Amino acid sequence: MALLVQKFGGTSVGTVERIKAIAEKVKRFRDQGDDVVVVVSAMSGETNRLISLAHEIQDQPEAREYDVLVSTGEQVTIALLSMALESLGCSARSYTGSQIAITTDDAHSKARIQKIETENIRKDLDAGRVVVVAGFQGVTEKGAITTLGRGGSDTTAVALAAALEADECQIYTDVDGVYTTDPRVVEGARRLDKITFEEMLEMASLGSKVLQIRSVEFAGKYNVRLRVLHSFQEGPGTLITIDEEDEMEQPMVSGIAFNRDEAKLTIKGVPDIPGVASRILGPVSAANIEVDMIVQNVSEDRTTDFTFTVHRNDFQRAQEVVAQIVEELGAREHDGDNKIAKVSIVGVGMRSHAGVATRMFEALAKEGINIQIISTSEIKVSVIIAEKYLELAVRALHSAFELDQLPAA
Amino acid sequence: MALLVQKFGGTSVGTVERIKAIAEKVKRFRDQGDDVVVVVSAMSGETNRLISLAHEIQDQPEAREYDVLVSTGEQVTIALLSMALESLGCSARSYTGSQIAITTDDAHSKARIQKIETENIRKDLDAGRVVVVAGFQGVTEKGAITTLGRGGSDTTAVALAAALEADECQIYTDVDGVYTTDPRVVEGARRLDKITFEEMLEMASLGSKVLQIRSVEFAGKYNVRLRVLHSFQEGPGTLITIDEEDEMEQPMVSGIAFNRDEAKLTIKGVPDIPGVASRILGPVSAANIEVDMIVQNVSEDRTTDFTFTVHRNDFQRAQEVVAQIVEELGAREHDGDNKIAKVSIVGVGMRSHAGVATRMFEALAKEGINIQIISTSEIKVSVIIAEKYLELAVRALHSAFELDQLPAA
Repeated sequence: MALLVQKFGGTSVGTVERIKAIAEKVKRFRDQGDDVVVVVSAMSGETNRLISLAHEIQDQPEAREYDVLVSTGEQVTIALLSMALESLGCSARSYTGSQIAITTDDAHSKARIQKIETENIRKDLDAGRVVVVAGFQGVTEKGAITTLGRGGSDTTAVALAAALEADECQIYTDVDGVYTTDPRVVEGARRLDKITFEEMLEMASLGSKVLQIRSVEFAGKYNVRLRVLHSFQEGPGTLITIDEEDEMEQPMVSGIAFNRDEAKLTIKGVPDIPGVASRILGPVSAANIEVDMIVQNVSEDRTTDFTFTVHRNDFQRAQEVVAQIVEELGAREHDGDNKIAKVSIVGVGMRSHAGVATRMFEALAKEGINIQIISTSEIKVSVIIAEKYLELAVRALHSAFELDQLPAA
Repeated sequence: MALLVQKFGGTSVGTVERIKAIAEKVKRFRDQGDDVVVVVSAMSGETNRLISLAHEIQDQPEAREYDVLVSTGEQVTIALLSMALESLGCSARSYTGSQIAITTDDAHSKARIQKIETENIRKDLDAGRVVVVAGFQGVTEKGAITTLGRGGSDTTAVALAAALEADECQIYTDVDGVYTTDPRVVEGARRLDKITFEEMLEMASLGSKVLQIRSVEFAGKYNVRLRVLHSFQEGPGTLITIDEEDEMEQPMVSGIAFNRDEAKLTIKGVPDIPGVASRILGPVSAANIEVDMIVQNVSEDRTTDFTFTVHRNDFQRAQEVVAQIVEELGAREHDGDNKIAKVSIVGVGMRSHAGVATRMFEALAKEGINIQIISTSEIKVSVIIAEKYLELAVRALHSAFELDQLPAA
């Protein structure tokens, strides 16, 4: 008898047959005596269909109306899943983000949840009903429909789990858990039984794509027990743990993350005076370009070189901004490269083990891979390399840190 | 400078191109200085797509969830039309039935409007915005989404016009007005410049299909000036008038309506005792079968024959109910026929002119058409005939009442 929040993404509810299969899965938990709140996304393809309708009308669709439009996708799914549950004799009731209400700020298409009413949900659960909630959407204080941005259904699930103090928030996906790295790149990639929030955060932001990063942050902040499982296969999945009590037994490195969506820009010969970094990044962020890595090395002859990475889609725009900056700062020159990849080793075990970075650099050197940029945090080391070496680097690191072997118990 | 409520149906907003064309039309009114509230249906085909998804899951979809599902259709349209208006530089804002709020009872999929908040709409109009409202939907006091049933967007438009005390409620359709009869049946069918509410009510319920009957009732009740126009052609349309001040100049008969969707059931040899009619119609209505005409003639030998008509789709079920009734009442027998059609002459002028029915029966007799059932009201005479004579009857009546000629001014 637990209170579970279960989230099913677009692929898991992509057809009527799959919706029926999900209903049967949910019913099994209900039959065991669990209280279940289900969060669903739009049927796969539906959100893109709606977005292209919008783009046929406006290049830059009106933000308020865009949310009115795309939020219908999840609304369709909650109705269909509730019907499927009812047809199995499992009492169910659906709620849109507005109906609950999931109150957000008014940043349309990337709104943030501010508060969730749980009264109706509690009543339904007490009445033995499965509650089916539209993910990805909310409502402002004034009643305007908002969306949380792509992948926001995970955030809805975690926020609901927090508000309801659920025993577990289960994110059902098309993978059976979190892996040491992408199994498509490394054959020996292994499912992790558990991973810490911080590691997951680094893995997600670095492109592991299993969970939305904001949902992981949320889960950590509100102590929500999070589990990643496969929608249509049985199995324990991967538990995202809050505590690090058995940290000593953790391997140094839990996984290898990578990302090919980045591009780097370098400004050379920047006058090395206070405030220069903000004079570079200010205009970049004003242009709504998100920056990932930022590296500035020691200066030479009172000038320095400044490098940062952006999403590859923003490369062109970022170059234009940088050209302007070079002029304004009287820097020497700038260049850029979008044929790069980022590879990172992630693990809370790094904290207590020296020499992890060294082992990483040695492994890459042994394969003749040149490191262009290095950036480190407490639980990860990231390097930028030429894109063509990506797979080679990931495989080399996966075996250097013995990730294909089960950790000693 | 008028306040207009304009309603566009599914065909008028069936593609992105049409939505853009509607936006341009609406903008022209706005540019003239009119305040405009637009009510739209789902894009044509969309509601059926959603319904078939529901039916893939449940034969009899859960009523509450069904409304959650199908109401998304109009939500998509309001967003797209608002975007289209904005892209023309015409400020616009969309509202779902819940957002306004259009409060209804909780009879899902055939809910009735109880009250409409106009505060937000007024604010938007005052701010120079076009207000775009989802037709066909509302919300219960408890916040559940409801729909008004098929065609309910007309009702939404009229109810909004009443609540806002609009100068005119314009229903845009794929015809340029109300005709004396169906132009596909009678070549000489003529567009009426105006028609009274009562006539329109009889025309609509008898199958003219231009307007939903409930919206006409509503318009009459709340003195809403209603006009039927073509979505993509210019023209004055047909005004549905409230007053009958110039009634004396009206022709006796304004139009010929007809309907092939009916079936008749007759119970013969029913004991002619008080309360027998309700003992027959009680079980029929309990089975949720709507009855149209009811005819009982004088009795003979203390028994009588009782005939009523139902929608052809309900014929099978009605026969089963009737078989049961025959047994319970000790009636002699029952039979039925679904190869029938109803033809009606409609006109407020009938009130002051005798002999209208006679002229009708003569015209049918001249063509050798046998009348099976007759039913009359103050402003209409309806007959049931064999379906095969339908077109012949409509043409004969159209010329017998000189409907192809303009009325004397």
